[in-house]
Amino acid sequence: HRPDPLPPDPQVHQWIEPLDENRVKNLDWSEVDVTLLGVPLSRSSISASGASENPDALRRAWKGFATYNLEEEVDLTSLKVVDLGDVRQHVTDIPTCHRNITEAMEAMRKHHPQTLPLTMGGDHSITAMLVKGWKKAHPEEQIGLLQLDTHFDLRSLEDFGPANGTPIRNLIESGTIRGEDVCNIGPHGFFNARTLKEYAIETGVRYITLKEARKEGVDHAVREALEVLSDRVDTLYLTVDMDVLDIGFAPGAPAATPGGMRTDELFEAVRIAGTHSRVKAMDLVCLDPLRDVREATVKAGVHVMLSFLTGLVQRKS
Amino acid sequence: HRPDPLPPDPQVHQWIEPLDENRVKNLDWSEVDVTLLGVPLSRSSISASGASENPDALRRAWKGFATYNLEEEVDLTSLKVVDLGDVRQHVTDIPTCHRNITEAMEAMRKHHPQTLPLTMGGDHSITAMLVKGWKKAHPEEQIGLLQLDTHFDLRSLEDFGPANGTPIRNLIESGTIRGEDVCNIGPHGFFNARTLKEYAIETGVRYITLKEARKEGVDHAVREALEVLSDRVDTLYLTVDMDVLDIGFAPGAPAATPGGMRTDELFEAVRIAGTHSRVKAMDLVCLDPLRDVREATVKAGVHVMLSFLTGLVQRKS
Amino acid sequence: HRPDPLPPDPQVHQWIEPLDENRVKNLDWSEVDVTLLGVPLSRSSISASGASENPDALRRAWKGFATYNLEEEVDLTSLKVVDLGDVRQHVTDIPTCHRNITEAMEAMRKHHPQTLPLTMGGDHSITAMLVKGWKKAHPEEQIGLLQLDTHFDLRSLEDFGPANGTPIRNLIESGTIRGEDVCNIGPHGFFNARTLKEYAIETGVRYITLKEARKEGVDHAVREALEVLSDRVDTLYLTVDMDVLDIGFAPGAPAATPGGMRTDELFEAVRIAGTHSRVKAMDLVCLDPLRDVREATVKAGVHVMLSFLTGLVQRKS
Amino acid sequence: HRPDPLPPDPQVHQWIEPLDENRVKNLDWSEVDVTLLGVPLSRSSISASGASENPDALRRAWKGFATYNLEEEVDLTSLKVVDLGDVRQHVTDIPTCHRNITEAMEAMRKHHPQTLPLTMGGDHSITAMLVKGWKKAHPEEQIGLLQLDTHFDLRSLEDFGPANGTPIRNLIESGTIRGEDVCNIGPHGFFNARTLKEYAIETGVRYITLKEARKEGVDHAVREALEVLSDRVDTLYLTVDMDVLDIGFAPGAPAATPGGMRTDELFEAVRIAGTHSRVKAMDLVCLDPLRDVREATVKAGVHVMLSFLTGLVQRKS
Amino acid sequence: HRPDPLPPDPQVHQWIEPLDENRVKNLDWSEVDVTLLGVPLSRSSISASGASENPDALRRAWKGFATYNLEEEVDLTSLKVVDLGDVRQHVTDIPTCHRNITEAMEAMRKHHPQTLPLTMGGDHSITAMLVKGWKKAHPEEQIGLLQLDTHFDLRSLEDFGPANGTPIRNLIESGTIRGEDVCNIGPHGFFNARTLKEYAIETGVRYITLKEARKEGVDHAVREALEVLSDRVDTLYLTVDMDVLDIGFAPGAPAATPGGMRTDELFEAVRIAGTHSRVKAMDLVCLDPLRDVREATVKAGVHVMLSFLTGLVQRKS
Amino acid sequence: HRPDPLPPDPQVHQWIEPLDENRVKNLDWSEVDVTLLGVPLSRSSISASGASENPDALRRAWKGFATYNLEEEVDLTSLKVVDLGDVRQHVTDIPTCHRNITEAMEAMRKHHPQTLPLTMGGDHSITAMLVKGWKKAHPEEQIGLLQLDTHFDLRSLEDFGPANGTPIRNLIESGTIRGEDVCNIGPHGFFNARTLKEYAIETGVRYITLKEARKEGVDHAVREALEVLSDRVDTLYLTVDMDVLDIGFAPGAPAATPGGMRTDELFEAVRIAGTHSRVKAMDLVCLDPLRDVREATVKAGVHVMLSFLTGLVQRKS
Ligand SMILES: [Ca+2]
Ligand SMILES: [Ca+2]
Ligand SMILES: [Ca+2]
Ligand SMILES: [Ca+2]
Ligand SMILES: [Ca+2]
Ligand SMILES: [Ca+2]
Ligand SMILES: [Ca+2]
Ligand SMILES: [Ca+2]
Ligand SMILES: [Ca+2]
Ligand SMILES: [Ca+2]
Ligand SMILES: [Ca+2]
Ligand SMILES: [Ca+2]
Repeated sequence: HRPDPLPPDPQVHQWIEPLDENRVKNLDWSEVDVTLLGVPLSRSSISASGASENPDALRRAWKGFATYNLEEEVDLTSLKVVDLGDVRQHVTDIPTCHRNITEAMEAMRKHHPQTLPLTMGGDHSITAMLVKGWKKAHPEEQIGLLQLDTHFDLRSLEDFGPANGTPIRNLIESGTIRGEDVCNIGPHGFFNARTLKEYAIETGVRYITLKEARKEGVDHAVREALEVLSDRVDTLYLTVDMDVLDIGFAPGAPAATPGGMRTDELFEAVRIAGTHSRVKAMDLVCLDPLRDVREATVKAGVHVMLSFLTGLVQRKS
Repeated sequence: HRPDPLPPDPQVHQWIEPLDENRVKNLDWSEVDVTLLGVPLSRSSISASGASENPDALRRAWKGFATYNLEEEVDLTSLKVVDLGDVRQHVTDIPTCHRNITEAMEAMRKHHPQTLPLTMGGDHSITAMLVKGWKKAHPEEQIGLLQLDTHFDLRSLEDFGPANGTPIRNLIESGTIRGEDVCNIGPHGFFNARTLKEYAIETGVRYITLKEARKEGVDHAVREALEVLSDRVDTLYLTVDMDVLDIGFAPGAPAATPGGMRTDELFEAVRIAGTHSRVKAMDLVCLDPLRDVREATVKAGVHVMLSFLTGLVQRKS
Repeated sequence: HRPDPLPPDPQVHQWIEPLDENRVKNLDWSEVDVTLLGVPLSRSSISASGASENPDALRRAWKGFATYNLEEEVDLTSLKVVDLGDVRQHVTDIPTCHRNITEAMEAMRKHHPQTLPLTMGGDHSITAMLVKGWKKAHPEEQIGLLQLDTHFDLRSLEDFGPANGTPIRNLIESGTIRGEDVCNIGPHGFFNARTLKEYAIETGVRYITLKEARKEGVDHAVREALEVLSDRVDTLYLTVDMDVLDIGFAPGAPAATPGGMRTDELFEAVRIAGTHSRVKAMDLVCLDPLRDVREATVKAGVHVMLSFLTGLVQRKS
Repeated sequence: HRPDPLPPDPQVHQWIEPLDENRVKNLDWSEVDVTLLGVPLSRSSISASGASENPDALRRAWKGFATYNLEEEVDLTSLKVVDLGDVRQHVTDIPTCHRNITEAMEAMRKHHPQTLPLTMGGDHSITAMLVKGWKKAHPEEQIGLLQLDTHFDLRSLEDFGPANGTPIRNLIESGTIRGEDVCNIGPHGFFNARTLKEYAIETGVRYITLKEARKEGVDHAVREALEVLSDRVDTLYLTVDMDVLDIGFAPGAPAATPGGMRTDELFEAVRIAGTHSRVKAMDLVCLDPLRDVREATVKAGVHVMLSFLTGLVQRKS
Repeated sequence: HRPDPLPPDPQVHQWIEPLDENRVKNLDWSEVDVTLLGVPLSRSSISASGASENPDALRRAWKGFATYNLEEEVDLTSLKVVDLGDVRQHVTDIPTCHRNITEAMEAMRKHHPQTLPLTMGGDHSITAMLVKGWKKAHPEEQIGLLQLDTHFDLRSLEDFGPANGTPIRNLIESGTIRGEDVCNIGPHGFFNARTLKEYAIETGVRYITLKEARKEGVDHAVREALEVLSDRVDTLYLTVDMDVLDIGFAPGAPAATPGGMRTDELFEAVRIAGTHSRVKAMDLVCLDPLRDVREATVKAGVHVMLSFLTGLVQRKS
Repeated sequence: HRPDPLPPDPQVHQWIEPLDENRVKNLDWSEVDVTLLGVPLSRSSISASGASENPDALRRAWKGFATYNLEEEVDLTSLKVVDLGDVRQHVTDIPTCHRNITEAMEAMRKHHPQTLPLTMGGDHSITAMLVKGWKKAHPEEQIGLLQLDTHFDLRSLEDFGPANGTPIRNLIESGTIRGEDVCNIGPHGFFNARTLKEYAIETGVRYITLKEARKEGVDHAVREALEVLSDRVDTLYLTVDMDVLDIGFAPGAPAATPGGMRTDELFEAVRIAGTHSRVKAMDLVCLDPLRDVREATVKAGVHVMLSFLTGLVQRKS
């Protein structure tokens, strides 16, 4: 359903359509399957981060990817994907940045609810803003979260404000979502305080540690989480914190640790999430291209996005 | 005038006294010559920066420096220097961060006005906050600025807020200082818009480009600037943006450029400033240890601080 | 069967014999098991590559390897391995480079057919030239290819010429081999266009994606491929593109991707290939030491070669 | 049993107590569970190494770790851990360095035998010195070694002296331990000469190659080794050479190789060792922070230590 | 003379106009002052080079530069500069690549002779092709060369073909230019064979070593060379090999050496060349962004281009 | 006077003759001008260093240098230079290492006194051993030292032993040389304790700080030092500590600092020393290739050696 003929063997940048002034006029929104949105914000990160550079880094790197997933025999070009560019950010006014993000999601949901929004962060603070935007557009919906993360992101809002350590707590305490509608797959090691785990227990936040998930496979854990959550909510929001990956695979995720997830586990996890009809939005956060090594993490980030879209094609067929 | 005997050949970390709880009780403030203050803030930087890591990086690196300046035959141990630690920062509330910085300077000036404050940034936004703190403590004083920088830092406050591109304009527009009491030595190349230069002309901000300064030497330019400014003001505040250095010497200053200052020129410039009786405060900003190479920039940062203190010893003798 | 006594615990460089002028005169070729050949050519690579530096990088790195494989209890010194040095390359005349490579293989096969040639590339374009050289020496033979690669290497010869994206198509279209006599183990992800997959299907090129191969193990896939191909051909040529490895393990393979093979899988794969009597030649390509990290990829390259030779010892015993 | 109240969510550096002059006076040694000791020695390493920087690198890096192990639901703060600082080393007198290490262990065992010593090396030569120190304090004990290493460390003392290639042989030939009381899990590839393997066989040194260990899992191999060894000895000493890890996970272990252990395998291995009552000491060696990439190896080193302590908590409960 | 209003403080990418399909139709060529052309070719380089990535790297990096030269008080926006994109290259057919380059220059000179072509290489082989293109368009002109290079580039065409070591000899032996009409400023050290110097003497090629040039300043040497050459030729072509720079300033120029030119010397040299009316074309070659450090060399490359254009503005006013 | 014909344009590795077994038999020592000796020792360095890798790094890097110095119009091939290989080192016995070094120098001086020894270190401890070897061979000579160094190297032998911080003191206290016969050009900054400067004054050690030397030029300072010292001694030994260079030019010299010497200053300094008839030996120390960036420091090291030999050719003609 794309007017301009694609080359026979398109690369991703030839397929994804940036929405410049000319195109926006002629766009038939009813044909758009997915909208990409960049959020170049990382000044709300607890530790110094260049995740603000990530949206453009992903855009550059996806020139090296084909639209064809050989293992799944899926051609992504059956989807129409539009890149809306970046949400406008302010240099020193973080509340304005966050408000812009919420408004961007709300506007997208109100005007083009048939499209699936895929957001390229930025630090994890943005997830709270994006989900709030969704909730504003769909106040009647129960929203659940499938989180792939090394961390709970349940730290105290009083201490940190809306930072990258607090988005899940932010969503729970603001009443946007319920704790039991969150499932985090991947926490491991010594990177979450005991009180945060206790908070998770109290508020019903579900989690499956990486060690636990690997007993039957991360893919299996994802399928189970999808089943449990999808019974409880109208919309599942998938949030991928790239620091869930092992530091050997993701040197460019500032908080990545040894003992984390492998890229092949993560790609399969998001592909499976993509196949599920309740999963209606996704984001990818905490990838800092400035400290990447040989672009390994940025390439992994693109692969995560394309794996999710592979699942989406499979869902639709 | 230091009670505890130093080892015969102290390294800098053996000489500078961190102000922990025990020491603060017994401290005779009248003996303190210089107070060091860390400001681990870089979320107000226009581009992503890890300058928040700089205060600790300087503290680690100065273990590799002796207190003795061989070329000047100056022993820094004749100064009593106290490290007050870091100003408390907030993760997502930049105005609070800035308020804390201003209050820290104001408090230091009010309670211990005989000491010279030397601040380790952080991004350049902090200079506006520090000078405002000085002004609050000494509202009657005319304050001048000797700036060593590749950039004017005169960008629009409306567009950026109190970021690292706006501190000088911030100080002028808030009435804290007068444009003519600023002199920037080192701007060069294609890194300042024409309208900013026009703003400099309009507001009387003085500057000497690097090319101009090198005609008779950067040292000569500094001496002239000190002479001109010291006739006009009560207090001269020295602010050193590490990106004034050439990128070959300062890979860890995010905005450093080719064609910038050499380290030997900078060290001599700050030493000369240190000798002048009107220079009563100093800061060092925009050094990001996360992108340094072989610690070259962090070591240069320590050297800048020690060169200034060398001048201070020479001033006192 | 080696005249000079080796030290009791030889390192690889003490065992492999470089063929200088003195040695070549006295060499008893009937005793030589394996000949190594460097091909320092990477100007035929689609993207910029320093794979031309690889042969010398391997030679330097193997000084850090013992000749004894502890896990297999195999001592490689039972093989006589001669390093013939590099095929002469031209700076700007790629056809001459390629002709020299073909002639080198043809000459080796004609004069010393009892030795197994192991070639250290260079980019993957050289495989087409090497197999053509074999075919010239043995026009009556059916030759098959066991390829370990992320990519099909079936891109259009009209568009690219004899580049590193086209060697397999080059061999098929030139009638050197049949599509059905190729098996590629390891393609994965979004790195092969759909039309290339269709070309593979049309020409009968076999492939096992990494995901598929891992169901019963890469080792199992290799055994099956060897069985299938060895029934069909006289000679099996093993070609290892180092970009089959995950980018976390092979940062120095320019086209390595996230989600690729692990080194332990690759080492076992080539060892198994080495044990099979039909596998009569091997090459290793697309390793760029200039972008390696801590020599991880170069060390993996040496390990691949030695793993193959381990299999060869096991084959002979 | 710690007097000062810890913060509710302590990081590791808030929990581990450095033993400065003030604290040592008031310390109730009967409450100390574990003593940490740094050994900043790497001039006894065969190849150039900065492992002398490791103790301080670990201390800096553990600020980024919580005390809570989420997967095991273990809070390390139930242990009292004291950091004794570094053993004094000499710049050019290696025998003095080694003597100091032996004496440090002997003194610890004599004066505070109820604490478990955990040593942060340094190169692997120190293990011989530490175990000798133990033996001096407990001459009646049989001591066994559980070694996780790519290498046997059985090279000739005549050729190398007490270097990082010889500690196990040193212990055997000095009569400190018996060969059969050593078990090395993890040797692999081409990194051990055949004569060393023969020496291992002759002296009864046990080993399980990585390939062998992975058949039923590294965790299973560790449990078996613990069972076998614990029947034979009074004390088991765990020594972890970080080069047992794959070079992709441990770029900062100078002798790490492709095809090595994964971090998750190693963390589980040491945790299991920590649970066993006969394991009474541990060291961690051959980690060179100067060549690390994104601190991956240093972080893995901290994780190894904390994983062992997790096992220790589990042992005690 | 630019139709679309520029923002008040344009960055370079807002000012330089990429010539896409829409713009080319409406372009008034008579208003174009400078045409930029990328030549992404480096497979003709003697040693492995990623200079093919340079044109795009320059385009990305110039987003960080203002159009205003503060030291010269020159605003580049008075020039209309059009970026024509890249000359089409072939993967394996170097003669075709070279032919395309020559034809591109010839076509530009024939159709738009009033514009000044500025070419972004690629390796130095392209200079021979570009000057030949000029000669084809203007067969009656005498062309001279002002070369800034560590090397003569006079190596044997028989041995190397049209590589990056031979362009000047290529131009002389093909009769395109005369040896005496070449002046190379910057050769130094041990990087030119004696026979090449003898060839330079025989053919009259002029050169000023860096040591010689620095006696009165590189700027002075450039002025003298311009004077001498401009009396002899109709057109002066400026070719800047980035390896003329010291390796400390230009880590991304593969053949840069210690003891080379400083960036400030080079910027002033090309600015002066830009002011001279006979200088009618320029190229910049041998910059490999893949091995750059902190983009220092790419930024220096942009600075070189903008310094030349600064001179061009000064020439016109 | 070299029997084998060199190629017309030799690179350094084609000219320098490694002394293997075959060549040593036929060597006419009376024709040898210079003997190169590697000393791969850095375990006597105060801080961790890979300077032991330097001799081989220099040998690899000099393949990229021609034998012709264009600026001086000197062809090094008029010298016969023999590379004797490396002095045998022990892994854990530093006194044996040092003894071997002294014996190597003594033997060279006794058997081949007409050749000039040029030693490639290793850390600076070796200079004490080399000069002692010279003294043993020539007990009647007064030996002087021209040192190019950031540091005095006068630290206490009691504290450090024969380390890289003590060689000059070692030579003075052992009576091998007199303090007044040493001149160090280049100390600067905060890298020498005051007591060491006092020791220098007491023992008469001469030094010229970099700031002082630059007043009339480093070249001028070298000429003066040569004049003063040569009147006092029979033999001048030149020792070049690569950390005299600025860290921007010598990232691979572990103790290099900001504000150090430029490479062009150093090259000219050693060339001038090479022209002086009293300078009869040279060494180059403290270059760690493991932490180099783009081989800048190793290339500078080769350039230093060749600059000295350029002076030697000039001396002889
Ligand atoms: Ca996280
Ligand atoms: Ca998170
Ligand atoms: Ca600045
Ligand atoms: Ca600034
Ligand atoms: Ca491939
Ligand atoms: Ca391939
Ligand atoms: Ca080991
Ligand atoms: Ca070991
Ligand atoms: Ca050149
Ligand atoms: Ca050139
Ligand atoms: Ca030194
Ligand atoms: Ca020294």
